[in-house]
Amino acid sequence: MYRDRIRLPALLDKVMTAAEAAALIEDGMTVGMSGFTRAGEAKAVPHALAERAKVTPLKISLMTGASLGNDLDKQLTEAGVLSRRMPFQVDSTLRKAINAGEVMFIDQHLSETVEQLRNQQLKLPDIAVIEAVAITEQGHIVPTTSVGNSASFAIFAKQVIVEINLAHNANLEGLHDIYIPTYRPTRTPIPLVKVDDRIGSTAIPIPPEKIVGIVITQQPDSPSTVLPPDADTKAIADHLIAFFKQEVDAGRMTNKLGPLQAGIGSIANAVMCGLIDSPFEDLSMYSEVLQDSTFDLIDAGKLSFASGSSITLSERRNSDVFGNLERYKDKLVLRPQEISNHPEVVRRLGIIGINTALEFDIYGNVNSTHVCGTRMMNGIGGSGDFARNAHLAVFVTKSIAKGGAISSVVPMVSHVDHTEHDVDILVTEVGLADLRGLAPRERARAIIDNCVHPDYRQALNDYFTAACAIGGHTPHILRDALSWHMNLEETGRMLAV
Amino acid sequence: MYRDRIRLPALLDKVMTAAEAAALIEDGMTVGMSGFTRAGEAKAVPHALAERAKVTPLKISLMTGASLGNDLDKQLTEAGVLSRRMPFQVDSTLRKAINAGEVMFIDQHLSETVEQLRNQQLKLPDIAVIEAVAITEQGHIVPTTSVGNSASFAIFAKQVIVEINLAHNANLEGLHDIYIPTYRPTRTPIPLVKVDDRIGSTAIPIPPEKIVGIVITQQPDSPSTVLPPDADTKAIADHLIAFFKQEVDAGRMTNKLGPLQAGIGSIANAVMCGLIDSPFEDLSMYSEVLQDSTFDLIDAGKLSFASGSSITLSERRNSDVFGNLERYKDKLVLRPQEISNHPEVVRRLGIIGINTALEFDIYGNVNSTHVCGTRMMNGIGGSGDFARNAHLAVFVTKSIAKGGAISSVVPMVSHVDHTEHDVDILVTEVGLADLRGLAPRERARAIIDNCVHPDYRQALNDYFTAACAIGGHTPHILRDALSWHMNLEETGRMLAV
Repeated sequence: MYRDRIRLPALLDKVMTAAEAAALIEDGMTVGMSGFTRAGEAKAVPHALAERAKVTPLKISLMTGASLGNDLDKQLTEAGVLSRRMPFQVDSTLRKAINAGEVMFIDQHLSETVEQLRNQQLKLPDIAVIEAVAITEQGHIVPTTSVGNSASFAIFAKQVIVEINLAHNANLEGLHDIYIPTYRPTRTPIPLVKVDDRIGSTAIPIPPEKIVGIVITQQPDSPSTVLPPDADTKAIADHLIAFFKQEVDAGRMTNKLGPLQAGIGSIANAVMCGLIDSPFEDLSMYSEVLQDSTFDLIDAGKLSFASGSSITLSERRNSDVFGNLERYKDKLVLRPQEISNHPEVVRRLGIIGINTALEFDIYGNVNSTHVCGTRMMNGIGGSGDFARNAHLAVFVTKSIAKGGAISSVVPMVSHVDHTEHDVDILVTEVGLADLRGLAPRERARAIIDNCVHPDYRQALNDYFTAACAIGGHTPHILRDALSWHMNLEETGRMLAV
Repeated sequence: MYRDRIRLPALLDKVMTAAEAAALIEDGMTVGMSGFTRAGEAKAVPHALAERAKVTPLKISLMTGASLGNDLDKQLTEAGVLSRRMPFQVDSTLRKAINAGEVMFIDQHLSETVEQLRNQQLKLPDIAVIEAVAITEQGHIVPTTSVGNSASFAIFAKQVIVEINLAHNANLEGLHDIYIPTYRPTRTPIPLVKVDDRIGSTAIPIPPEKIVGIVITQQPDSPSTVLPPDADTKAIADHLIAFFKQEVDAGRMTNKLGPLQAGIGSIANAVMCGLIDSPFEDLSMYSEVLQDSTFDLIDAGKLSFASGSSITLSERRNSDVFGNLERYKDKLVLRPQEISNHPEVVRRLGIIGINTALEFDIYGNVNSTHVCGTRMMNGIGGSGDFARNAHLAVFVTKSIAKGGAISSVVPMVSHVDHTEHDVDILVTEVGLADLRGLAPRERARAIIDNCVHPDYRQALNDYFTAACAIGGHTPHILRDALSWHMNLEETGRMLAV
């Protein structure tokens, strides 16, 4: 059954069990694995590695594209396998280990990991483990539902293990566009000028002799955990769509808007869903992850083309999309995350980047990662790659969390991932603040008036007024700036009721 | 005398006095003026505008390339002319007005101002005032010692005033390379692949009928205020050069290093001067401002080519360089700041970006702009344009300030301009911390051990140890995180002696 998936016959004798493949990974190695937003991760080998480590402890430094599905980060963490992990994760068990200082987590802009590898500023992977739908006649690797960093990992690693996953339809082949930037100092421009340009190959080109093991699997990707739109996320979508209409009316965008990027998660997905009933047409996406909403928009005739680095779908959507892939295939491309998130391309295309904030402050600085300035949630992901160079850098969040105990708008963020220079538009269910061309005091006025939950508005106004009385370009009262977070840690609420 | 500088005879009748030209600027207008790091600013018209405002008050929104010389920001501030100012400034009088909330200052990445104008996200200039050495036969404008945002201001403005400055040698013509990116959605790659590529024109192409006034001046640029290297800045240079040697030995760079960018100021200038006696050769610069050290390096045979957006020299160097420009001209180019600082080009070329920090924290977040989180110094300038996409993002500062009352390394920065994701190398006179590939707890260890002044090391160790005991990916004790800044504001010292 798998023989037609390994089209270079010389490689057939590399087929082995997951345990045999995992045995090729040695204690202390740096390992690069496929996987991006719970899509297309190598599944059997990391599981076998965790099982092995329960018997014979070992530690590795693990790099992936982004998050893994199938509880693999949990299994690897519980088995004590991870000494270092980069550049992103979403697993609650791993998160605890990171926050306990047991796993060294390097939180990176997703476009930068392979650039740093290419420049040997990070240790190159000793071995790569890449999920594939097929190996070509040339011995090249055809990825599955994500490209992520797989191509560069396979190119940089001395040895490559391929997991051929029969649960993925073989007709994924052709979906991918593998382009690797040339080396400096003779690097040339990335020749991508339109969302649907194809600039690379459909498989990862490596010398077949680097393939040291092939494992056959048949395990699906984990379904996405995105929640359906609710009243708040629908309100956020409505505010943003009303703003887009104003932009079109003002002549700053056409009815096609710009190429859309949406971060992973329920709020960004809801915003994209909101476009189904919008007046905009012939939309395009240039994003990291293609979620349910991407395909809903294609089905609605709204979205003409979507470029991503992975496809992560809910149970509901999964069989429908992959069972009818031919319906979508000419409207899709999956690229390496270096290219989907590349500053050069993001700036050139003029992307509308929509990402989720954990909290933002009255001056528009955004915290995407750290609870109370200290505890890592997931990581910055691609939000910085997009926000810095986007035509419009939009951050969305609900105005309150934990039943109102937490305000998402605070005097000063407890951690900064995106500085006020990189944040154009902030949206909560309360409303939208357009910060373009505003000085900090003006930004504060726009944010407090438009985005803050009514229960916190007076308190933020009081803080801002008192801070302005003291003065400064960005007025703050240092003694009080982080007091809301201190209250939260000490009493479970940012402000006394 | 000026007639050979205005080579389109039809424009000769546009010559007028500065007062007449200033009268073309109306209350409420948005004005774009030349000038970048105190080089090449329009001089007579803004001065006349300030004089006029003393009699007849008016307000404008002023945008420039970066800072102005000849006390123009001071004069305009004192005359109450400035309602809004972007994207950078260095004037102490204007700084006070900004911090008092009297002038709305929009602090921007220097590559982004004209991008936002092009997209009409900022109000377009009604009128531009551009210093020139000449107007060509086509009516195109030949800039002087800076390009900055002058080209796009002249292109976007409905009306253009040209100041022909006879104090600048006419042989500056040919030095400039004016390239303007095409409009989205049909934007093409910026065709610059080498530091010395010329991709544009030597003058700013505008329809000559837009030139509504020409003012003849003869006033030099202000000399730079860079201090000569001292023991501390020399130590910083030595640490960085030793690090570069290690990088060459490790095969991560050649002996030519990468294209160098150095922020304005005494420390970055001292670092560049340090390269004169280094083993590196055939160096190149791809920077914003070319300072004394650029020409010292050329004279020493170390630097083969320098690309910038302006030339700002000390009194000592000024007449020597501009009096012997033919000696340097084939080794220099001046570009629009959108191109000198463009993320696409910075990432492609693999720049070594060396910029000055006001303070940084134990996790490597950098504050470039705000004293105690509140009071603006100058602005972020191009530091973010370079640091985000550089091959090596280096930040330098002396470990203490104000005779030791202030530590430049703090538990938590009071304002973030560059997040830990964008900071590779930190250097003080104490030593160098290489943060590449490190998790926050590892970054803290490297920074405290290598960069902190001995007087503050124990206190930072104590903070870090106590924070780690509480836990977190980026351990902090919120109650104490900004206490050093509070102490400074209340007692004049970060820590009690």
